[in-house]
Amino acid sequence: MSAQSRPGPTNSVVDVAGIRVGHCTRDEPGWLTGVTVVVAPPGGAVAGVDVRGGGPGTRETDLLDPRNLVDRVDAIVLGGGSAPGLGAADGVVEGLFDDGRGWPTREPGQVVPIVPAAILFDLGRGGTWRHHPRANDGRAAYDAAVPSVAQGCVGAGTGARVGGLKGGVGTASVVLPSGVTVGAIVALNAIGSAVDPATGRPYAAGLGLEGEFSHVGVASPEELAEAVRRAESLPDRMAGLPAMATTIGVIATDATLTKAQCQKLAGVGHDGFARAIKPVHTPFDGDTLFAMATGAHDPVEAVDLMLLMEAGADCVSRAIVHALLAATSVDRSGDGGLAIRCWSEAFPSALA
Amino acid sequence: MSAQSRPGPTNSVVDVAGIRVGHCTRDEPGWLTGVTVVVAPPGGAVAGVDVRGGGPGTRETDLLDPRNLVDRVDAIVLGGGSAPGLGAADGVVEGLFDDGRGWPTREPGQVVPIVPAAILFDLGRGGTWRHHPRANDGRAAYDAAVPSVAQGCVGAGTGARVGGLKGGVGTASVVLPSGVTVGAIVALNAIGSAVDPATGRPYAAGLGLEGEFSHVGVASPEELAEAVRRAESLPDRMAGLPAMATTIGVIATDATLTKAQCQKLAGVGHDGFARAIKPVHTPFDGDTLFAMATGAHDPVEAVDLMLLMEAGADCVSRAIVHALLAATSVDRSGDGGLAIRCWSEAFPSALA
Repeated sequence: MSAQSRPGPTNSVVDVAGIRVGHCTRDEPGWLTGVTVVVAPPGGAVAGVDVRGGGPGTRETDLLDPRNLVDRVDAIVLGGGSAPGLGAADGVVEGLFDDGRGWPTREPGQVVPIVPAAILFDLGRGGTWRHHPRANDGRAAYDAAVPSVAQGCVGAGTGARVGGLKGGVGTASVVLPSGVTVGAIVALNAIGSAVDPATGRPYAAGLGLEGEFSHVGVASPEELAEAVRRAESLPDRMAGLPAMATTIGVIATDATLTKAQCQKLAGVGHDGFARAIKPVHTPFDGDTLFAMATGAHDPVEAVDLMLLMEAGADCVSRAIVHALLAATSVDRSGDGGLAIRCWSEAFPSALA
Repeated sequence: MSAQSRPGPTNSVVDVAGIRVGHCTRDEPGWLTGVTVVVAPPGGAVAGVDVRGGGPGTRETDLLDPRNLVDRVDAIVLGGGSAPGLGAADGVVEGLFDDGRGWPTREPGQVVPIVPAAILFDLGRGGTWRHHPRANDGRAAYDAAVPSVAQGCVGAGTGARVGGLKGGVGTASVVLPSGVTVGAIVALNAIGSAVDPATGRPYAAGLGLEGEFSHVGVASPEELAEAVRRAESLPDRMAGLPAMATTIGVIATDATLTKAQCQKLAGVGHDGFARAIKPVHTPFDGDTLFAMATGAHDPVEAVDLMLLMEAGADCVSRAIVHALLAATSVDRSGDGGLAIRCWSEAFPSALA
């Protein structure tokens, strides 16, 4: 990003006009999961998806193939709860039905709500394996959708973990010199780490816009050594088992894009994962990115498309940094779940 | 990469036993292009491919779809010359025929040589638009294949350029704690840059194994300012035109992988592009990575597969750094071609 670029008014995905975000956070005792819904403007948004992780859990992604008919989605669900959590989308479909929103078929009112979804793995982190989001949680997230975004341990990020630290939801936006706005929202939950082990800084802090992460410095040697010690003593590491994870997100823009261009935008967005998380796209991460284009701006020429796609990747990277910084520690070990430290508790010297 | 990992004996892709590499370099007056051939051991190697750039030029990539029959390749061609350069593979096919190598069909000797290929854009850089590699150049590269790898402005990297600096061929390898060897060879030629504009260091220098890039420091403010000035005055930048580029490469390993696993290895390898080049996978880059598995080691379990894939991505990143460091300046402006500075000429203070 050059100095020409600045974030939108809220530095979040809802800076794309018409986009709303709702969270349902299930963090009562025994629970540590949730749902985040990204709602398109009325009439829907053109969308695409790119699934790059080795263990994905998704719904309605084949519909997004550019060869297939339906080219607009009404909402996208990001959820916890692994495969069973896909049921949360049912509640979003019903909410859209109630609002008369969906793909028009025959008679007025005969619409089919289109709600692609992806899940991340957080089962058992709150203590009870079968506490995953269900349709009512999806409906609650849909009903809570507003043009602002809470970050940290909310919605799909409630039970998230990244490289042994607490994950969560993060978001970021940018307004390009052309006037096009691009934003991203990510639920960060990865086998890999989002932190450079040599410095304690988030890998992608250097991709911040002017001043965005200038308060984030280098951690002390003592804190770095402690972080290594803790990483090596993680329960699943000790047992020689792979953890399960998955980072999921949505890139949104007010540009006019085709379905195929949205698919490419989602694909280039994964470069933002690669710069912010290491390793990423592993067999144990179902890393998935959606892209939505609301079409308020004119169609994009190839050179501008390049800038837009790179801005999307950078928003994804920056959203990941915000997720890490906004997360807070949690301890559910008393319920049989996990205790997970957050970045700011692990590396307080980096913020000093 | 942890301190446990070390490069193979030559820190190159031929550390994977049986792999040979041949270059044909066409850098006489009017020319600035070439071909690099990666030859599999006798009997071939299981292979996969992932095409992530927006402007690819490829041959025999559909054959590598895991659903399709043929699961072994005899060689992979990386070439200059854009789409016309794909003809170089013809000469490699003939060379393999002469050696009796290929996919067995009916009678002994009735083989079909399998030679996937990808090209990069370098047309006109030597001064003459139609000077692209042809079948005889591919054959020369095949006949030159040896178990060692020259780096820099050779083979497919002869006419390469990256973010206004000279590109080239680079390679790297690693031996994992399991004993599996992974290597990569890349022809670096990108719209984006491989250099952090804030420091002059290659983006991926931090991914080096112990001591690999410790001689590469930070450039002086004067050199950094000069680099920005030159980037802004590039002829195509001045004309408002997108340049054309494309980075291509091969990851090889002695592990036993399926075709589908090779495809995934190639896909995760693109994370190595994302960490070493920015932007990457643009509409003007046909970025393509192949993966080859020779099968000398036992099949890989999922956790080891994760380590192997991440090692592949890191080898790709490190190969890109080696390509940048090994490249040398060239001036073909007297022939109507380009003058391109190399990294070490642009940032001598970083090596001081």
